[in-house]
Parts: sequence; C-alpha cells; structure tokens
Amino acid sequence: MNNNTLEQFKEYLHKMRQYDHVLTLLYWDLSTLAPEKGVEARMNAINYFSTESFRLSTADEYGEMLKELSKPEQFDALDETMQLTVKRYLRDYERFKRIPEEFYSSYTEVKTRSERAWEKAKRAADFSQFAPHLEKVISMTKEYVHYMEPDEEAYEVLLDLYEEGMDSKTIDRVFDELKEGLLPLLKKIEESGRPDLSALEGTYDMEAQKKVQDMLLSYIGFDKDAGATAESEHPFTTDLCIGDVRVTNHYSEKDPISAMFSAIHEGGHAIFGQNIDPAYEDTALEQVNMMGLHESQSRFFENILGRRRSFWVPIYDKLGELLPQFRKVPLDTFCRAINDVHPSLIRTEADEVTYCLHIILRYEMEKAIFRDNTPVDELPQLWNDKMEELLGIRPENDGEGILQDMHWSDGSFGYFPSYLLGSMYDGMFLEALEKEKGSVDTILEEGRISEITSWLNEKIHRYGSRYTSAEVLQRVCGKELSAQPLLDYFNQKYAKLYGFQK
Amino acid sequence: MNNNTLEQFKEYLHKMRQYDHVLTLLYWDLSTLAPEKGVEARMNAINYFSTESFRLSTADEYGEMLKELSKPEQFDALDETMQLTVKRYLRDYERFKRIPEEFYSSYTEVKTRSERAWEKAKRAADFSQFAPHLEKVISMTKEYVHYMEPDEEAYEVLLDLYEEGMDSKTIDRVFDELKEGLLPLLKKIEESGRPDLSALEGTYDMEAQKKVQDMLLSYIGFDKDAGATAESEHPFTTDLCIGDVRVTNHYSEKDPISAMFSAIHEGGHAIFGQNIDPAYEDTALEQVNMMGLHESQSRFFENILGRRRSFWVPIYDKLGELLPQFRKVPLDTFCRAINDVHPSLIRTEADEVTYCLHIILRYEMEKAIFRDNTPVDELPQLWNDKMEELLGIRPENDGEGILQDMHWSDGSFGYFPSYLLGSMYDGMFLEALEKEKGSVDTILEEGRISEITSWLNEKIHRYGSRYTSAEVLQRVCGKELSAQPLLDYFNQKYAKLYGFQK
Repeated sequence: MNNNTLEQFKEYLHKMRQYDHVLTLLYWDLSTLAPEKGVEARMNAINYFSTESFRLSTADEYGEMLKELSKPEQFDALDETMQLTVKRYLRDYERFKRIPEEFYSSYTEVKTRSERAWEKAKRAADFSQFAPHLEKVISMTKEYVHYMEPDEEAYEVLLDLYEEGMDSKTIDRVFDELKEGLLPLLKKIEESGRPDLSALEGTYDMEAQKKVQDMLLSYIGFDKDAGATAESEHPFTTDLCIGDVRVTNHYSEKDPISAMFSAIHEGGHAIFGQNIDPAYEDTALEQVNMMGLHESQSRFFENILGRRRSFWVPIYDKLGELLPQFRKVPLDTFCRAINDVHPSLIRTEADEVTYCLHIILRYEMEKAIFRDNTPVDELPQLWNDKMEELLGIRPENDGEGILQDMHWSDGSFGYFPSYLLGSMYDGMFLEALEKEKGSVDTILEEGRISEITSWLNEKIHRYGSRYTSAEVLQRVCGKELSAQPLLDYFNQKYAKLYGFQK
Repeated sequence: MNNNTLEQFKEYLHKMRQYDHVLTLLYWDLSTLAPEKGVEARMNAINYFSTESFRLSTADEYGEMLKELSKPEQFDALDETMQLTVKRYLRDYERFKRIPEEFYSSYTEVKTRSERAWEKAKRAADFSQFAPHLEKVISMTKEYVHYMEPDEEAYEVLLDLYEEGMDSKTIDRVFDELKEGLLPLLKKIEESGRPDLSALEGTYDMEAQKKVQDMLLSYIGFDKDAGATAESEHPFTTDLCIGDVRVTNHYSEKDPISAMFSAIHEGGHAIFGQNIDPAYEDTALEQVNMMGLHESQSRFFENILGRRRSFWVPIYDKLGELLPQFRKVPLDTFCRAINDVHPSLIRTEADEVTYCLHIILRYEMEKAIFRDNTPVDELPQLWNDKMEELLGIRPENDGEGILQDMHWSDGSFGYFPSYLLGSMYDGMFLEALEKEKGSVDTILEEGRISEITSWLNEKIHRYGSRYTSAEVLQRVCGKELSAQPLLDYFNQKYAKLYGFQK
C-alpha cells in the first residue's frame, strides 16, 4: 500500500518535471533566440503549459497522495529525501490550491507580456511604456501572495518565497549593521581617489570576449558537457536539469570587464546547479529556490574569488592572448580596475562595495511598494531620490534608473535582498574556508582553484535545497547570520589595496 | 450546433499546436545546443510530450468532432481551409487510431536514440555502432506504416507520406527519364576536364563564414525577425510557426562554399515557411508535409539561382569583404568552382548534376530495404557497390558512405526521392518563371532577386499545403511532372559553361 502510493507519487513527480523542463526551455529560448514575430506563438505555448503545470500541482489526486504519504505510518517509512519532498510539496500544494486557476493563468500571461514591455521600455529609456504593466504586475503579485498566505503580510511572504525562513526583521538588522560599517569605509576609499584606468579604454572584439567567457567558465569549474551558453539582454542562469545548466551573457565592445564578471557570476550559479546530488533528481531537493544561498555561490566566484589579484595570476597571460589589449595592462592596474570602488548608477556594473547600497535601495523601494502602497508613477522619482541619498548620484533617465533591472517586470519582488544576503553568507563562507584550507590567495596563486570549487561542491552544492540557508550557515560556519565577516573582508581588502589604515 | 462543434474543433487544433510547438523546440534545442549530459532528460521530455500529442490526435472526442464536421450539412458550411483541414485530419486520425499507443511511444524513443547513435557512429565512421539501431528503426517503420495502411505496400505508403499522391511508378518513370538524359551529359562534361581550383585553397575564418550566411540569407529574402540561426551537425530548417522559422548550418575551415550553399538551401526552405498565409495558422494548410515541394523551394534558391554567375554579380564584392580570400578569386573561377561537376562521395557536397545520381542510389537502397528485405549488415556493401556503378567511385569507410546522411536514423525512409522530385519541379518552375518574367540572369544581374522571391511567394509559398505538388505543377506550369525541363536546363547551362555542343 505504502509502496504503491510512493511509486505513484514518484511517477507523478516525474511527469511534473516534464512540464518544468519544457517551460524552462520555452523561456530560455524566448530570451536567447526567439525572433520578434514568433513571440505571440511562444506566449501562447508558455501560457498553455503553465496552466497545465498548475493543474498538475493542484490536482486532487496529487493532494491525496501527499496527504496519504504524510500520515505517520507512511511518512516514517520514507527516506529523508522523500520526507522533505512530501513536506515541502504539501505546503506548496496547499498554497497553490487556494489560487484560482483563471487567476494563475492570467497572472502568467501578464508577467510574460510585462517582461517584453520592460525590454522595450528599457531600450527606449521610457518608463511610461512600462508603467501600466508594472502596476498590473504589482497588484496581481499582491493578490497572488494573498491567496497563498491570507494571514501573512504580503512582503514577508515574498521574502520567504525567495529565501525560506527569511523575514524583514532579520534583513533590517543585518542591512543596518552593514550600512553602518560601510559608510566609514566608503569615506576612506573616496578620500584615496580613483585609479587611472585610461589604459583599459578601447574597443574589444566581441568574438574574442566570448572565448574569454569560455576560458573563465572552464577555469572556475563549469562543466560544458552539462551546460551551454548563449546571449541575452540580461545575463542569467537556467537549470533544465542537473546535467543541463545554461548561462547567458551580454557583450559590449567598450567594456569587456562587465561580461567577464557576468561570466564568473553566472558560472557560479551554474556550478551549484551542476553539482547537486543526482540522487535528488525529480525530488524537491533538486530545486534550489533559496535565492540568497544561490546568489552566495555566484557572488563567491564573482567577488570573493574573481576580484582578487591571485585569481588572475594563473590566467592573466591567457586573457592577454585572447584580448591582446590586456597585454599592455599590468596585472596591478587590472586589479585596481576590477576593484574601482565608486558610486555608479547600474547595479550589475557596480563594484562589490557600493553594490550593497544598490540592494538596500531596492529593498527600501520594495517596502514602499508593498507596505506604503506608493503609486507606480511616483516610483521613478523615489528611486532617483534614494539613489542620491545612498550613493550621492542621480540618474539622468529611467533607463539607467528604475528600468535597469528585469526583476520587477516578471513579478520577482523580494528577490533583490537575496543578492546582499548572499554576499553576507560569502563573508562567512570565506572565513570558514580559510580556517579549514588556509589562505585563499595562496591556493589561487598556486593554480589550485579547483580545490575551492570542490570545497563548495562538498559543503554546499551537493545538498541542493536539503538544508535552509540558516542551516547551511550553521553546518558550514557554526554560527548565525551576521554582516561582520563581510565587513571584515571589505575592510582588510581595501585597506591593503588603497593603502589606508583599517 | 455547427458553430459550436467548429469552435470546439478550432480550440482543439490550437491545443494540438502547442504540443507541436514544444516538440519542435525540444528537437531543435537537442540538435543545436543541448549538452551531452542533458540528453537523457531531453529524451524523457520528448517521449512524454510525443505520447501526449499522440493521445490528442487519437482521442475519441477529436474523432467525433472530425466525423461530425464531415457530415454533408456541416461540411458544406465550412470554408475551403476548414474543409481541407477536416478532410486531411480525418484521414490522419484514422491512420493514427490504428497505431497502439505503446508502440508509438516506443517507436519515438527508438528513433531518438537511433539519431544519437548515428551521430556518434558517423563521427567514428563505424557502421557496427549504428547497425542495431538501424535494424530496429527499419522493422518498426515497417510496422508503423502497416498499422496506418494495412492494405498498402509499405514503401508506397512512405512515399505518399512525404509527397502526397506520389508513387514508385511515377518515380521510376521520371528517374529513368532523367538517368537516360544525364549519362551523355556527364560524359561530355567529364571529357571537358576539371577546372583549376587551387586559388580557393586555404583556411577560412569561421566567424566570417557566419557573417556570409547572414548576408546570403538577407539577400535571398529570409526575414530575420521571423527566424533564427544556429549550428548543428547537419544543416536543417525547423518551423515553429509562420513567424519563427529557423535554419542551422555546419561550418568547415577548409570549405566555405559548402556552408554558403547550405545557407542558401535552408534559407529557401525557410522563405517558404515564413510566407505561408497567416490565415492558415492552426489549420492543416500551415503544415507542408509535401517534401518534394518543400525541397523544390530550397533547391530553387540553392541551384537554379545560387549556382548562376548572375546570382553573385550584385554580392561578390561583399563576399570579398567578409572573406578576403575571395578578392583574389575572379568571379568566373568562383563560378567554375560552384559548378564543378564530378563524381564525389558526399551527397550534400555534390554538384547539382551528379547529385541526381546520389538520390537515385538512395531510392534504390530504400527499395532494397523495404521490398527485398536486404539484411542490415549487407547494406554498406550494397551502398558501396551502387556508388561504384552509378558514380564510378567507392567510399573508403562508411562515414563517407552509408553513414553520411541522418535520414534513416530517424526513420525518414521515402524522404530522399523528394530532393530529386524537387529538382524536377524546379526545372518546370524555371521554365514558367522565364516565360512570365523574362531572363532570370537579367533579373539577377540587375539586383532584382526580390522579384523572383516574390514570384515564388505569390505562386507557391502563400498556399502552404493547400494544393498537392501535382496541383501546384498544373497551376504554375500548366503540365504534368516531367524530367525534361530539368534536363534542358542542365544541357543548356553546362554546354555554355564548359563550351561543348549541346
């Protein structure tokens, strides 16, 4: 009896995975290859299969299996993987079951259209094109989470959706802690003046930049037999399955460094996805919806490793072979360039220090949207004011202001804090790694980066979403979330780089 | 009542199209991007959605709608598009209904695995790796068509599947007619000796070759807002919908001409797909399964236009800009190179004259497989013998012999004759075009190629599969299929090019 329900349940999960696979591919292709005149047909397909997938995840027969397997006599006989799967999926089932199918289907369509509208509005730097879509997405997102958790505050539900167990109280605490530590550091850095980066100016071949991406991906441990690359407006990573995790990039002729760090960032995400225990296939543990934990891995590679001189020592000659302009740039100049801390408008191009403030800005915007119900037409001004307050600069148009990120266009409110949570986890992971393996600089300089990747695989990646982020921090670092290790890392690094007292 | 069934039927067709869309994308991505370790998951998805799609096209409710709409009082009230759709889909429904679902599902899986095995076997030039797959595909294809048409001979059913209304009697007649006309021509050409093509030897940049493809596609009228390009082992065209028709190519450093003609060939297919009347969307007329007609369009661009000196006059300088080696090659030398008629082993690289014999070889092989039941392990030898008989040369390994084409790996037996039928249609279309618009050389030399593309759009493409190939020939040329116009075109062209008497 037990076995029978379990077998049926596994078959059902496998069937649901086929819809995930296809939807992931439909979106991937839409963002990387689908031509303008094929978009309408694509949206029809996305809408159709989203609805089918929703039906599967709210079907009565599915609910009955979940409830049956949750009964103590059945549940106790399950292995841990299945126990966690049943527990999480039952919670999701109950959440989704409260959403009317028609609402879900129309929400999906609204989000897909809004994403397309955002792309155009961003290109045109015209917020008015996007505003009606954003308004609709906000109100439907509120409705969506209200269906899921009618008794909870909307923004708290969103935070929990992207980082299980996270709440605004914790975020307020660590973001404040961070802000307080950052201000004196930024002041010192600003007083040190900016480096001369004119040696880097020029035009960089786009095809060669793609080869640099391949080189970097392979250097950090991306398995190209389990992934693929493509171009898109905004770099992203997509997981079709453990054996097929793909990254995109966006190249610019004038700025090769941006694409290099996007490659390392997305590569970090992909390495996480590629190294999940294959035994978790078709279970809840394969799906890592804890975005803070996921961002910690992309940002560990991008910042903690990628912005170190020692990271580049073994590959700087290769970079010069692929992009000959770098042959004339000494490694130290390059290092100053990739650690040029100064206020700037675009989050994805910001240095790792001011980046924190970009996220705090977005977190405050999201609270304004969800708690204060700030009207959509006031958001660009609010954005610009906050930018001036936090970073001392003001966008000249909305393309470099509120329109710069895609997240809100597809309803991903509550996602932004993950980036900064990820960075804070990274400070803690770095501490733990050095305690165990010694100086990261030594490991990198000696060309042993694969030992770091393996350490992350072993400590974090292979578990997929088995543990919550808080549990991972306890297991790996033995303590609770704190901003201090990240601040320590910043203070040490920049005191050395800019030559001021800590 | 009528309206009600019709509306339900249209909704049902729209739903079925979503499965076509997704399956097309799953295959496209498998051939262009999916990594090795993602193949297993992809096959699961293909198998799942193929089975779902099969269920939809054999569902009782679908059959009842088709039968209801076929009743005279309902049928007479339908427009012509819907009448044809109901008629064809009822025939397909009845054919498919006879196939057991389990068989269908296992046939799909066997074909997908066989395709992958073929790719590997081709790379290794090792027929033994592929033989067990081929054997399985042959026996299951026989079974498949026997289910569909139990009273018909298997190979006749296959020919009809790829070119409605076509039979081996007609093919025997025109292929014999052609063979008879080709032998004296080939003899004359051989006596004229081969041109000196050493000026073309060298290494050609792959990225530049991709730009040449873009240039050629745009020159012949491919709409890039309604399509996309990618790379694959074997060039192909894929139709997701009228607004999204994609082509692939395969590049080689030593031979830029092969990829150029693949680009023109696949571009011809794509232009057909992109120019079907949008009113046919979601109906049977959108789907052009008449492969002879489809190949006639790709081959018209590739051969009838692409291998003419006049085709290159307006763009030869551009070619030299993209691939500077061509600057040193006079246009006349280039023209001799792209019309270098001589026996060779690989079909896709063959000149347009000996190409005909490559197809005749495959047609004879297929008759041997389906009529004489020749055992699979005897096929490589039979291939090589026929190659020697028809073209006077013998492959040194199976990679350049029986393994060269993917068609048999996925069960597409009966497809090959389409290529040659397409060429024969082309001879007839050329005759009709020149009668109406004057010398094709003049039009091309004057840079008015878009007038030819428009003529094909107007006369052929927009109708999709509304008319059978035989009907198209009647409508456009006013006569029945004959090999004579193609022979006339060959005789005239090569007499001029090689300077011998016709």
